[in-house]
Amino acid sequence: MRIYLDCWPCFMRQALSAARRAGADADLQRHLLLATMEQLQALPPGATPPEIGARIHRLVRECTGVSDPYAESKRAATERALALLPELRARLAAAPDAFETAVRIAIAGNIIDDGALAAYDLEATLERVLHAPLVGEGLEPLRAALERAESLLYLADNTGETVFDRAFIEWLDRPLTYAVKAAPIINDATRADAEAAGLVPPLVELIDSGSDAPGTPLPECSPAFRERFVKADLIIAKGQANYETLSTVDAPIVFLLQAKCAVIAEDLGLPVGSVVVRATDGVRRAS
Amino acid sequence: MRIYLDCWPCFMRQALSAARRAGADADLQRHLLLATMEQLQALPPGATPPEIGARIHRLVRECTGVSDPYAESKRAATERALALLPELRARLAAAPDAFETAVRIAIAGNIIDDGALAAYDLEATLERVLHAPLVGEGLEPLRAALERAESLLYLADNTGETVFDRAFIEWLDRPLTYAVKAAPIINDATRADAEAAGLVPPLVELIDSGSDAPGTPLPECSPAFRERFVKADLIIAKGQANYETLSTVDAPIVFLLQAKCAVIAEDLGLPVGSVVVRATDGVRRAS
Repeated sequence: MRIYLDCWPCFMRQALSAARRAGADADLQRHLLLATMEQLQALPPGATPPEIGARIHRLVRECTGVSDPYAESKRAATERALALLPELRARLAAAPDAFETAVRIAIAGNIIDDGALAAYDLEATLERVLHAPLVGEGLEPLRAALERAESLLYLADNTGETVFDRAFIEWLDRPLTYAVKAAPIINDATRADAEAAGLVPPLVELIDSGSDAPGTPLPECSPAFRERFVKADLIIAKGQANYETLSTVDAPIVFLLQAKCAVIAEDLGLPVGSVVVRATDGVRRAS
Repeated sequence: MRIYLDCWPCFMRQALSAARRAGADADLQRHLLLATMEQLQALPPGATPPEIGARIHRLVRECTGVSDPYAESKRAATERALALLPELRARLAAAPDAFETAVRIAIAGNIIDDGALAAYDLEATLERVLHAPLVGEGLEPLRAALERAESLLYLADNTGETVFDRAFIEWLDRPLTYAVKAAPIINDATRADAEAAGLVPPLVELIDSGSDAPGTPLPECSPAFRERFVKADLIIAKGQANYETLSTVDAPIVFLLQAKCAVIAEDLGLPVGSVVVRATDGVRRAS
């Protein structure tokens, strides 16, 4: 997905928020806003929002010397989500269609987002996503693709959301590879964050993308990761940044996300707040 | 009030919104965002948010050739507010403390704001502002100042809000001067906008600030306006931009506003959403 002009003020807001989380003083905050504007003034053609987001958050980390400005937010999100895990399991056990509920739980966790959102209400979102219409018509293609697929790659998004992924993956009860970021970026999950959420063998094989960019910009990922990506029979991609970086990639992907910002909602052709299961052509054709 | 770093993304958002309202195509929208960043990169020390807002909105008007991008929004806001006027009058007639209700009605109208807000709910705001705590401890100083004052200057803010001012001013039932902007800026009221809301003689004497800047930046106002400002026994100043431009001016001012953005709320030392009657030292000392 391309960068929309609406993303520009959002990058500025994110830079300021990250700078403050990293403890930058007012002068450094100002410097980081100026540096963000330089990035926007020199946007390379074809860049996706996560690619520019990665540059801006790298700048914040370099200028502040804080390697993980979102560490405390991530720790708190995992703790809060783990406290909900027994309830998520109970809801799955009681669900008339456990597959659909498992998918909805995975999507509900996507509300945990320190990039797109200033604040969120986790419990209220769970209730909403469990009952809202599922749009994108991908649920049945996903069900069919899961039956066909031998190798399954699951692209993680945010820390804490990982616990909601865990509930889904426990219910799936099959081998899969769970891919996180190679280094901290916003509140995206890294290996340590995923491990803290219980995403460890034998439940999953844990790998990283080889990159600290949000989403999955394939040219920035490691050769080892790209090989896994190409070989996967089915890729479940969580969250906005994975949609932004992979929406035009020809691969068997099902995107699970909440359309939290107006730009992504417009790109999807759906209202803000939509609970989305979007399958690529490759998945739809096969089912 | 000074410009906070949080204002930077907000200026970008406003520039884009104004450009689109003026019908700018994608290239021109982009050009206007770049021009806005140039303004932010060269911020003069001591500038207030309305001064920079004025520059940005002037740029939009010049580059698009549209003299009043908010014309349709203003027309609709006045129409909607006029439809509420009978209800406002009825509430005043039934109020146990009509003065307090009149002040609350004037503040409720301040939700109509195409600058600070992307959207608002007029009827729900009226209900909220009529019953929320009034903060700033200015109600009794205002009551006393109105009893003392001979000459009264009322600084208008947004179009449509004008109708809520009219309900307050009808209830006051005394001569006063109502000051609007000299030319269109965001959805701020001009002479024509105020006249469409019924703010005409003999209810008020209608003047303009001599400037198209939001709020009342005195150095940008006409000498004639400044003379009226200096001679007024009491100045009622509506909305955020008047607070931003006059909060450090030594004059007998009572600010009536809703703290709609986090920056102004912080400057006031109050939560976002506060219903504010803030009197300057000059007003408080005299009462």
